[in-house]
Amino acid sequence: MEWIEENNRLKKNFKFTNFSEAFAFMTRVALIAEKMDHHPYWVNVYNSVSIELSTHDAGDVVTEKDRELAKGIDLLV
Amino acid sequence: MEWIEENNRLKKNFKFTNFSEAFAFMTRVALIAEKMDHHPYWVNVYNSVSIELSTHDAGDVVTEKDRELAKGIDLLV
Amino acid sequence: MEWIEENNRLKKNFKFTNFSEAFAFMTRVALIAEKMDHHPYWVNVYNSVSIELSTHDAGDVVTEKDRELAKGIDLLV
Amino acid sequence: MEWIEENNRLKKNFKFTNFSEAFAFMTRVALIAEKMDHHPYWVNVYNSVSIELSTHDAGDVVTEKDRELAKGIDLLV
Repeated sequence: MEWIEENNRLKKNFKFTNFSEAFAFMTRVALIAEKMDHHPYWVNVYNSVSIELSTHDAGDVVTEKDRELAKGIDLLV
Repeated sequence: MEWIEENNRLKKNFKFTNFSEAFAFMTRVALIAEKMDHHPYWVNVYNSVSIELSTHDAGDVVTEKDRELAKGIDLLV
Repeated sequence: MEWIEENNRLKKNFKFTNFSEAFAFMTRVALIAEKMDHHPYWVNVYNSVSIELSTHDAGDVVTEKDRELAKGIDLLV
Repeated sequence: MEWIEENNRLKKNFKFTNFSEAFAFMTRVALIAEKMDHHPYWVNVYNSVSIELSTHDAGDVVTEKDRELAKGIDLLV
């Protein structure tokens, strides 16, 4: 599945086996995000993680920074 | 600030100094949630964490389980 | 690789690709440990995690609780 | 309490209320370490976290990188 660009946000949903697997994924995304100083808007409920990326400093639109974070996240799964 | 019951969900927003502090809080909530086998719907962006609790098995309404999780979360901050 | 029982401790080393993968594994072990109220002695450096299990309340020997936690950990990898 | 330099390692022990608090601290240290690409040797058991820092690339001695990481860790507690 691909990232979808919609309303100036880059979006993707991730499904895991259970909460533990989902939260471990979130921990890895957190490590990347903090390293890039670029943090996601994300929603978690149980085994599902929905991520939406946009760049606040650029006026809440999708920038290269978001595409780079998206790429880093995709490498985790 | 208190939890608000709205649309069959128990809701509260938490603000932290930065992402690191917010994510450490989320990690502690994750430990409680997994222990209780009762997981939140939650949204994080940078230093803000919004939590909404309801009990899926009871038909997505607020139950004692949600109040117990809410209490556990409040003890963390 | 198997767990080794040595000096009243159940031991195993885990190797990962990098720190991020190792720490995500640790997060999942933390969730299990907290759920069981039974916590490991563990050492991490970069991509390596060494776990040693024993039961303090039983006089620091290996008990069924340790074998159960070991089993739970093995399911993660 | 201060960091102690011993055997070419910068060392400090941290005590917390419980495992949850200790692991939340570890998560924050992980975020800093990954951002700096400089990772600790650390041991956790329940509410205790022992950290030892040295720089592998410099021949396993204490360098400025270790002092910087130590400073970052101290800001968390």
